[in-house]
Amino acid sequence: MLTIVVDAMGGDHAPACVIEGTVQALQESGNRFNILLIGQSEKVEPLLASYDTSALNLTFLHAPEVVTMEDIPATAVKTKQESSLVKGLQLCKAKQADAFVSAGNTGAQMAASLFVLGRLPGVLRPTIYAYFPRLSEGLTNIVDIGANVDCKPEHLVQFAQMLTIYQRYGAGIEQPLTGLLNIGEEEGKGSEMLKQAYWLLKEADRAGKINFLGNIEGHDILKGKASIVVCDGVVGNTILKFGESIPEFMGILFKRSLEKVMISGQMDEKMAAMTTSLFKGLFDPFDVEIFGGVPFLGVDGISIVGHGRSSSRAIKNMIYMAEHMIEKRVNEHIAEVLSEK
Amino acid sequence: MLTIVVDAMGGDHAPACVIEGTVQALQESGNRFNILLIGQSEKVEPLLASYDTSALNLTFLHAPEVVTMEDIPATAVKTKQESSLVKGLQLCKAKQADAFVSAGNTGAQMAASLFVLGRLPGVLRPTIYAYFPRLSEGLTNIVDIGANVDCKPEHLVQFAQMLTIYQRYGAGIEQPLTGLLNIGEEEGKGSEMLKQAYWLLKEADRAGKINFLGNIEGHDILKGKASIVVCDGVVGNTILKFGESIPEFMGILFKRSLEKVMISGQMDEKMAAMTTSLFKGLFDPFDVEIFGGVPFLGVDGISIVGHGRSSSRAIKNMIYMAEHMIEKRVNEHIAEVLSEK
Repeated sequence: MLTIVVDAMGGDHAPACVIEGTVQALQESGNRFNILLIGQSEKVEPLLASYDTSALNLTFLHAPEVVTMEDIPATAVKTKQESSLVKGLQLCKAKQADAFVSAGNTGAQMAASLFVLGRLPGVLRPTIYAYFPRLSEGLTNIVDIGANVDCKPEHLVQFAQMLTIYQRYGAGIEQPLTGLLNIGEEEGKGSEMLKQAYWLLKEADRAGKINFLGNIEGHDILKGKASIVVCDGVVGNTILKFGESIPEFMGILFKRSLEKVMISGQMDEKMAAMTTSLFKGLFDPFDVEIFGGVPFLGVDGISIVGHGRSSSRAIKNMIYMAEHMIEKRVNEHIAEVLSEK
Repeated sequence: MLTIVVDAMGGDHAPACVIEGTVQALQESGNRFNILLIGQSEKVEPLLASYDTSALNLTFLHAPEVVTMEDIPATAVKTKQESSLVKGLQLCKAKQADAFVSAGNTGAQMAASLFVLGRLPGVLRPTIYAYFPRLSEGLTNIVDIGANVDCKPEHLVQFAQMLTIYQRYGAGIEQPLTGLLNIGEEEGKGSEMLKQAYWLLKEADRAGKINFLGNIEGHDILKGKASIVVCDGVVGNTILKFGESIPEFMGILFKRSLEKVMISGQMDEKMAAMTTSLFKGLFDPFDVEIFGGVPFLGVDGISIVGHGRSSSRAIKNMIYMAEHMIEKRVNEHIAEVLSEK
């Protein structure tokens, strides 16, 4: 049975949401895994007491320190060795657990994962990706979304390779398609880094390591032209956060417009309610919590990174994501392919 | 009276739309400027003949060559000296005209403008910006949107300075606010280039050249946190094209949802029509044609760059933009501020 460490202290709504999501995952899955819930006992235990956990594979572990959202990643890892973050990852390193899940400080989790778990053989830079909505069936992942800012062309190639492996083995996509996010479709477009990345990606395609579509542009993302959109962390982070702001922005515009037509008497309350429900449903594809979080790809272990805003549902889905990563042996495949010369 | 050269051959719907927009601008403005319409006589004259232009300040000039959307910018400028693009800009350089307007090949127009007009004193790299929708009153401009891909920190500072001048004199914004688009708000975030740009922007703020807010993130753009969003051309181009794709993407999702509720009988045709009209109205803030086009800032002359898709309304508004740039003496202000040591 798999053992998954869950960071009780990670996330804006921690520990309450984390406890709720953990209990839900165990109940829903029929106790399919062991969970080690780790955090400050004075904060976690009183909340945990309100659940009947006697029949669940749930063990609580005390960690006196907490890495907060404000902590500077590199410093937190060094100075907070007794935190749920560092202790949780150390349990994975010591093979006492198979995966670590947290919705806490993303930068600190990346730094600690790299420091405690190390990199998989052949991996230059571990990376995180995000999910994007798309019009057609399938999946769109953008990589990197901020873990790596000063990227070299060879880093982008590895991001594409790692996502290709993830999508193939982890998401059942037979032929993941990689597009290089650029300012134009033609060869020779973009910065020096992008021009070189283009040629290296072509080479990786010829070597059968990825399926490279060529350059794609900003308007190709939502169309779902590529299943893997490769870019540096500055571009990826910006586009991700911009994308995440769309539902709220459109929601405010919608509210203003709806008020106008209601005041003018063109719509009654019933019609307004139906229109609102239709409008809200449009943003279902933007729901990031379906996946809960993403693995920090390229580290020698499973470290699932969640959004700070994570609800209990997101926490639950992150636990499933951890299980999925282990079962599909994604890391073994990455190590195998990336350590090839 | 100002003389504005309009490139009849520029744009996906040229020359028909260009002619229509030009005639509209003259009619609507009461013949407020002279327009030199330039293009291939065999294509333009038959269309022009269907308008009564006898009372308009409109002169047609023949240019035998055309720069197409497929032409490589640097090559086109050199080999197509008899094109409407190059000849039109040369009229500005020779002071026979005050401004040039085109919705053609953007890269070629930038290359030709730089080559024919040259740079304003002190300007390192001319730039183009874009308009973005925002929730609050005011204006959001993103700069650079693809003219400059391998940017140095000092280029970003000049982009901020040029936009500050443009917004102050051209758009009547007393205190334009500059934000540096980055992966986090804190000092020290981002790539080496962004870290250095942050400090140079701080310095420019202390020197009273700009109002610098600090780092902003992707989700701050639509909120309208800054009126000037500074980034390199790869980030700006990507976010611009991504943003432009949202109305179509949401429109398809909306159509699918509407069909479902109509088939299920929850909405009748009248209600569906009203909901559709409300939904379409939400994207009015995304309408790029209000401004038609943008000036290529930093060149020694007025060269207004339009979207390839430009309608006659966009062409008309680009002509007004040219007039506006001249009247507000934006270039004189840029030269004055940027040549200061």
